[in-house]
Amino acid sequence: MSDNASAPTAPASPTPLTLLGLGAMGAALARTWLAAGHPLTVWNRSPGRSAELALRGARVADSAAEAVAASPLVVTCLLDDASVREALADADLTGKDLVDLTTSTPAESRARAAWAAGRGARFLDGGIMAVPPMIGAPEAGGYILYSGPRALFDQHREVLGVPAETRYVGEDFGLAALYDVALLSAMTAMFAGARHAFALVEGAGIDRKEFGGLVTGWLTAMAPATAAYGDPAAPEDTTSPAVVEAGDAALLRTAREQGVDTALLEAAAGSVTGL
Amino acid sequence: MSDNASAPTAPASPTPLTLLGLGAMGAALARTWLAAGHPLTVWNRSPGRSAELALRGARVADSAAEAVAASPLVVTCLLDDASVREALADADLTGKDLVDLTTSTPAESRARAAWAAGRGARFLDGGIMAVPPMIGAPEAGGYILYSGPRALFDQHREVLGVPAETRYVGEDFGLAALYDVALLSAMTAMFAGARHAFALVEGAGIDRKEFGGLVTGWLTAMAPATAAYGDPAAPEDTTSPAVVEAGDAALLRTAREQGVDTALLEAAAGSVTGL
Repeated sequence: MSDNASAPTAPASPTPLTLLGLGAMGAALARTWLAAGHPLTVWNRSPGRSAELALRGARVADSAAEAVAASPLVVTCLLDDASVREALADADLTGKDLVDLTTSTPAESRARAAWAAGRGARFLDGGIMAVPPMIGAPEAGGYILYSGPRALFDQHREVLGVPAETRYVGEDFGLAALYDVALLSAMTAMFAGARHAFALVEGAGIDRKEFGGLVTGWLTAMAPATAAYGDPAAPEDTTSPAVVEAGDAALLRTAREQGVDTALLEAAAGSVTGL
Repeated sequence: MSDNASAPTAPASPTPLTLLGLGAMGAALARTWLAAGHPLTVWNRSPGRSAELALRGARVADSAAEAVAASPLVVTCLLDDASVREALADADLTGKDLVDLTTSTPAESRARAAWAAGRGARFLDGGIMAVPPMIGAPEAGGYILYSGPRALFDQHREVLGVPAETRYVGEDFGLAALYDVALLSAMTAMFAGARHAFALVEGAGIDRKEFGGLVTGWLTAMAPATAAYGDPAAPEDTTSPAVVEAGDAALLRTAREQGVDTALLEAAAGSVTGL
């Protein structure tokens, strides 16, 4: 055995697997499996990052069907659910274990599971709660949600746990997508709120980098308050509805003063009520 | 000197002050000044929390004008800017230092400063970045923004620093309100996003308290990404516009599947672009 920490170390059980989709996320996943010593076959619609991954030891397939044929475990990380159906159209899925990490809706995930069963494959749906830099970096707090047959998840738990922590959420195939989309929706609104904040201060001569630190700090300080929506035992907020309403109105008037679109605030209005 | 830690300790320089407005926030501010040993006169339009504060040592004035007459330093923490004008209508502001912590727009703050000058008062505008439980609890990360004459801020810095950390942002009277509203707007969008997330999982048999932990954890993990909007040197995001667009579309389709209003997502759409 080598002492060289940068050399791939053989995993307890090397699991050959195939990955379809080498966008920023797919490539990040691939690097962790290769680094962990799992034999990996990859395919992407365009050449994309194939050459880089080949240098790291990936086998690059010429077609999705060839990639699928190479391994009993097939992971998809594609643009959307329609891309998954399209990529797998000519593949023989008989006896395969298909794990779909593509962002999809709960209904799409359930339909894709039924479709996979009809093609002779077992199915797990996954939802990635991470941006690519958080893959292979456990300290960043990312994880991947899974739903579908518990036994199938347990069978592949070790290899699925290589890119990020795993979190199994239930047998219903749609659950991982439901959690995934719910959390991504909350994040999307938070990001839009931050953009609104930057738009408001635009042109006011404020140091944007310093202001960014305030935005991050304030959102981080207030994020725990969102848990109150799910916890009836959370401390009751003492802010009166009249104060919330007056606050929302001041935000709207300020947006108008500064010439910033008010659609986000209008959609969010009253959101503090009940906290 | 007493060893009793709960007894008010005399501040280095006890500063008599007046506070108009005893909502949840005003009362929280008042308690910290009383606990720190500053002679405090309070007034509220309705009796509200006056009795409790009197028990803690506050002098309760019968009118705003009487409260203003009691101290050279007058702090307002009212519903909105119109309430400030109304409450101070009959007060003699000559020679007073007026500090307005009411949430207002930048233009309103500038106009209130000019109005105060016309009435013979010096003016500081403030914006409270805290909910009431964060007042008097420095570890919670709250602070109060101030803008206006630097010398006036420095003169009152000690007593203004009792309820929460102070952050002076500039001479322009509108700056504290601009920062304040920008940060509150980002928070409002984040809260609305969390409500959207809870609405999506409603009825899916998910443990809401556990889900709330995931929402908090995910928003906390992703909040630092918002700083990128203000920092051209931030690491470039590797997520392609096509992936962002496909992701936004999946969020919209899921909202429709789950019967949740899409206005927030539509307003936020594309917000990940550029991160």
